[in-house]
Amino acid sequence: MHAIMKKGPEPGLAMGEVPRPEIAPNEVLVRVRLAGICGTDVHIHKWDDWAQGRIHPPLVLGHEFVGEVVESGRLASGFKPGTLVTAEGHIGCGICTLCRTGHSHVCRDTRILGVDTDGAFAEFVRVPATNVWPIEPGIPIEWAAIMDPLGNAFHAVLTADVAGKSVLVTGCGPIGLFSIGIARAAGAARVFASEVDPRRREMARREGADRVIDPHTEDFEQIIRDETRGDGVHVVLEMSGNAEAIGQGLQVVRNSGRVQWFGIPGDPILLDIAQSVIFKGLTIYGVTGRLMYETWYEMCNFLISGRYDPSGVITHRVPFARFDEAFAAAAAGHSGKVILDVSGNSGSGPGGSLPGGDRPGKSR
Amino acid sequence: MHAIMKKGPEPGLAMGEVPRPEIAPNEVLVRVRLAGICGTDVHIHKWDDWAQGRIHPPLVLGHEFVGEVVESGRLASGFKPGTLVTAEGHIGCGICTLCRTGHSHVCRDTRILGVDTDGAFAEFVRVPATNVWPIEPGIPIEWAAIMDPLGNAFHAVLTADVAGKSVLVTGCGPIGLFSIGIARAAGAARVFASEVDPRRREMARREGADRVIDPHTEDFEQIIRDETRGDGVHVVLEMSGNAEAIGQGLQVVRNSGRVQWFGIPGDPILLDIAQSVIFKGLTIYGVTGRLMYETWYEMCNFLISGRYDPSGVITHRVPFARFDEAFAAAAAGHSGKVILDVSGNSGSGPGGSLPGGDRPGKSR
Amino acid sequence: MHAIMKKGPEPGLAMGEVPRPEIAPNEVLVRVRLAGICGTDVHIHKWDDWAQGRIHPPLVLGHEFVGEVVESGRLASGFKPGTLVTAEGHIGCGICTLCRTGHSHVCRDTRILGVDTDGAFAEFVRVPATNVWPIEPGIPIEWAAIMDPLGNAFHAVLTADVAGKSVLVTGCGPIGLFSIGIARAAGAARVFASEVDPRRREMARREGADRVIDPHTEDFEQIIRDETRGDGVHVVLEMSGNAEAIGQGLQVVRNSGRVQWFGIPGDPILLDIAQSVIFKGLTIYGVTGRLMYETWYEMCNFLISGRYDPSGVITHRVPFARFDEAFAAAAAGHSGKVILDVSGNSGSGPGGSLPGGDRPGKSR
Amino acid sequence: MHAIMKKGPEPGLAMGEVPRPEIAPNEVLVRVRLAGICGTDVHIHKWDDWAQGRIHPPLVLGHEFVGEVVESGRLASGFKPGTLVTAEGHIGCGICTLCRTGHSHVCRDTRILGVDTDGAFAEFVRVPATNVWPIEPGIPIEWAAIMDPLGNAFHAVLTADVAGKSVLVTGCGPIGLFSIGIARAAGAARVFASEVDPRRREMARREGADRVIDPHTEDFEQIIRDETRGDGVHVVLEMSGNAEAIGQGLQVVRNSGRVQWFGIPGDPILLDIAQSVIFKGLTIYGVTGRLMYETWYEMCNFLISGRYDPSGVITHRVPFARFDEAFAAAAAGHSGKVILDVSGNSGSGPGGSLPGGDRPGKSR
Repeated sequence: MHAIMKKGPEPGLAMGEVPRPEIAPNEVLVRVRLAGICGTDVHIHKWDDWAQGRIHPPLVLGHEFVGEVVESGRLASGFKPGTLVTAEGHIGCGICTLCRTGHSHVCRDTRILGVDTDGAFAEFVRVPATNVWPIEPGIPIEWAAIMDPLGNAFHAVLTADVAGKSVLVTGCGPIGLFSIGIARAAGAARVFASEVDPRRREMARREGADRVIDPHTEDFEQIIRDETRGDGVHVVLEMSGNAEAIGQGLQVVRNSGRVQWFGIPGDPILLDIAQSVIFKGLTIYGVTGRLMYETWYEMCNFLISGRYDPSGVITHRVPFARFDEAFAAAAAGHSGKVILDVSGNSGSGPGGSLPGGDRPGKSR
Repeated sequence: MHAIMKKGPEPGLAMGEVPRPEIAPNEVLVRVRLAGICGTDVHIHKWDDWAQGRIHPPLVLGHEFVGEVVESGRLASGFKPGTLVTAEGHIGCGICTLCRTGHSHVCRDTRILGVDTDGAFAEFVRVPATNVWPIEPGIPIEWAAIMDPLGNAFHAVLTADVAGKSVLVTGCGPIGLFSIGIARAAGAARVFASEVDPRRREMARREGADRVIDPHTEDFEQIIRDETRGDGVHVVLEMSGNAEAIGQGLQVVRNSGRVQWFGIPGDPILLDIAQSVIFKGLTIYGVTGRLMYETWYEMCNFLISGRYDPSGVITHRVPFARFDEAFAAAAAGHSGKVILDVSGNSGSGPGGSLPGGDRPGKSR
Repeated sequence: MHAIMKKGPEPGLAMGEVPRPEIAPNEVLVRVRLAGICGTDVHIHKWDDWAQGRIHPPLVLGHEFVGEVVESGRLASGFKPGTLVTAEGHIGCGICTLCRTGHSHVCRDTRILGVDTDGAFAEFVRVPATNVWPIEPGIPIEWAAIMDPLGNAFHAVLTADVAGKSVLVTGCGPIGLFSIGIARAAGAARVFASEVDPRRREMARREGADRVIDPHTEDFEQIIRDETRGDGVHVVLEMSGNAEAIGQGLQVVRNSGRVQWFGIPGDPILLDIAQSVIFKGLTIYGVTGRLMYETWYEMCNFLISGRYDPSGVITHRVPFARFDEAFAAAAAGHSGKVILDVSGNSGSGPGGSLPGGDRPGKSR
Repeated sequence: MHAIMKKGPEPGLAMGEVPRPEIAPNEVLVRVRLAGICGTDVHIHKWDDWAQGRIHPPLVLGHEFVGEVVESGRLASGFKPGTLVTAEGHIGCGICTLCRTGHSHVCRDTRILGVDTDGAFAEFVRVPATNVWPIEPGIPIEWAAIMDPLGNAFHAVLTADVAGKSVLVTGCGPIGLFSIGIARAAGAARVFASEVDPRRREMARREGADRVIDPHTEDFEQIIRDETRGDGVHVVLEMSGNAEAIGQGLQVVRNSGRVQWFGIPGDPILLDIAQSVIFKGLTIYGVTGRLMYETWYEMCNFLISGRYDPSGVITHRVPFARFDEAFAAAAAGHSGKVILDVSGNSGSGPGGSLPGGDRPGKSR
């Protein structure tokens, strides 16, 4: 089968030919229809320090996907062929203290699909049955393709208790953009967003941010103070991994506030924890993955009820063969979510078809 | 000054003439513009068992109101004459363990305005400065008049963590109706409501309930099971005080779910706590008043941002002199919120004027 | 093999002869050494209404036990023969929303060992591998035998956040007695206990209750008020299932307090929920089983560190053949925990041997 | 009256003569008996960067104290002359959002006794009535003198939910030492402590640490891994402010664990927040002051019930005139808590008298 691969220890990716995976008795084989490109995939493409330390080529990339069940192992009953499914990409060990107490999203023996094991940028992918998530009728197939990153955003927002609160999203890449709309849907009273790229600032506005800040030209702190009676925001959702943004978030969160760190900085950060954290009485939470499976249920409840619609954040849908274009778009820093059309005839779900290539995020 | 009073230990109310209140150094005198009628006021009017045990006539009724500061005591600086204010009606002792640890809404020495001390159905009312709540510009005066009962609904919804969850509101009087809209604004994925009165069921639909149930003619349990994959709802907001509704709520809440009890039953209730509570692993929370003052801040954030609009629940605005009509409307079981127009020239705020008398709740 | 059975739909139990269980690939076969008698077993013995509705004879009883792994199914690797184990007796479905979100203790399809499926009052018992709990070295075998009911007590106490708080335990059967010591170990500042039986009151004192109340002869409410500055207790752990005790707990818990209901009343209870729950702003939590598996880890941490020692609550250890004596002791209302010695040569663990028959609870 | 003062903008302190304070109507005048020396006082003594930026001489130092009420303002009724009291040293504004929602410990307009306003190292001190905390009979006067720092430790431990968990205390100065014993009293299953000073390590052992680590000579990470089944500790209480200790805490806390930051680093810290916080799914909480007044009630419940005894941490009691010795002891890094005996005849409470000067912490 065809697969987008890291073939050796060097920058770049290539379309390869690999055998169709064999499944174990507790696994499910899925024919991939759409797959999303994650920042992680871009790091692997670039072959940066993190990738060099973690990735063992040859490897099929990809962990965001939707597809149809082709075959189920003997112990994975309940998945009929043809069922539309996606999957949680973190494969926990299932037997450690963390996995047994609701924390398998940070299991120390987690293997990640497309990172530690062959992934979903391929015609077929195999996944453990426990990780398979069937798609309810009524969910557009494109939404199903990106439940993994959407779940990151839901995890970040819903563990911050935003109803009636003011929220700042620092960094408006795809997950920051999702977070804006989710925070509004979950009752955030006022949503601020900061972002250096003008196209993404425009998308942030369309996704419902009440005030969008350009941190390079505007007085960040003054704006927040003015619009929060001088108190600062209740909640910061840090989605950029940028050291400056991390610092700004700590500066403008109110005393006793909450900061969710999701964006991954490339290097250690210098923090004045006395002034920024201790004297302010802050709570900081490190967001990894999605809660298995609270986040999934909550997310699907938001989606199926129509309370939140991620369509506006999906800006590109690119044929599988033209994956280079897709990776270029994902890496450029202007886009929303970029989706690969793995099977040529995958059409679209109820959400409607997107032409391959660029599309402006639509207003909600 | 004129005041609506319980003059003696018998049913009924009368317009009386009483001296304008003198304020203590830590109090504020307010000229009342609008006042809301609460179920409590209806009980006092009827002179039922509860009222006979609690009320000591003569008493000026009323605890839901908005008005202008006329005068402030020496220790109550910061309130300029003319400032539009409402007030928290529960006056805690301020020095007990409960008051000192964030639970003054259930202080054992609470005195309630218009119940234990002369209230706001009068041209002037005096309130302790700590209980005075200034109204932010942009809040319609009618909304300000009903922040006390609106606060009950916010307290009930926001302590139940409804984002992404299914919610059932049993009983669609004013506070039930508020709760429907607030639950939606706070991210509830699906809102069910049950109510025996057809006009209130219609209002429930307009306020955003996804499914409105007539418990007398529909199969309550079957509907909920069918629409929640058999699990039942995550959260029940019990707003009726009706024994049957209390039982239905316990029956259709899912295992490990949460039940908020707000409606006050007149008599003890027979409960199968083994089947209804223990084996289900439920959490039940008794909702009294409003958290002082978390609920007030959260509520005002929802209102000022426009995330929630209570206008549709306000169905009547009646001149002060015609209070009998207002009480009849409040007692009849068909209305939303009923407001008394205490000062003839109170006009209206940004929300627009309502004619006295009946008004259908408007669609949001 | 020998087993204590309900042979037909009538009162009583009998020693029967049944085939040794065959295990499925995901199960483990355990040779039982000790087994505890639960109130549930007593109900089945008596053949009361609950038992008649739930139990389908013939059935081997018993869900509290410790034993040695004899054989593991192909998919249940990791359990070496000879390993000392006990098990969680609630067998969840594993795939429902509740099981997938940390609430499998209230899974709607739970089957309970010894209730819905053959249990542990037998020479051998089979259990799903996911439910098997290996015993750490250093844990006395008698403690291992009663981790199921001990887990009930840990669940009740540790979800009530008792550190620095006042706690009332109503009902001093085995689980009430465990709760007294656990509450102290978890930092409860003052532990009250109420119990009608004088022997159990004496045990409550030995387990560390600061004040033990005879509800039939002492002024319950006055005592609690006097010793809590008039506020009442922060937390009630209701362990009796007795209607009077349930009412007393609600009466003496402080406003904003927490009530954990564990004891199962035989009949519906008449509750004045207005005065007892709503106006007090209480939280009530229904305690079922144990959190899977948070409670197990927390419990074992308390036990292995010696912070809590349940030995004093184990009052009887009776040879398997003399099970009638054991059931009589468990039903009489004077005892602590009653253990059956299933395999004659089971000796004892580090905790020391107990003679069969009566033993006064030892002072801690 | 005599007072220990910072007379001008330079290192050192001096005994000064200042007028006895006049009280406002809402204040209380207290004759000081004992006063504790805090790290903050040591910083002011040294006149370091922080002190130079914050302190405006002349200033009377001191915020930890116990004394007798001498006089109460007209609005501060309820405090009889002679009543033994201490006080919360953080004086919030009382009217901001934070103060009105249970977060006055981080009010932005807080003034601190002995830092922003004249303090308690004097014969008399004045405090707002709302901050005065009466001492219950049975509490030794020395314990009463140090409720402010003891409250820091209770705040840090009790917001971390330690029952049944493993805890690491990094830094065994007075507050670290308090935390060890409090964590045990609150049910921590295993308490680790790290400290560079051998005398303090010995005190840590006496206070109940199960394993005390010398971070300069022992393999910190290996020890924790070995004794926590490889998982790391559930909770870290960082009490040192040392960059290395902060890093070690983040390294050995388990995934999904909780870190309480209390110790104040002098400089910004370089943190790898990707590896240390985000990928681990940690929660970090900045501990400032004490919750007003939850922490005070919880603390007093622990003390009055005898569940926790801080006596062993009090190593020095020095006459007021010999304050130089006391400051030297507090600054040397070997001591527990150092107390000044302000009024010569203050004798001692039920806890017994301590000779001035060095005293080994007693075993509990």
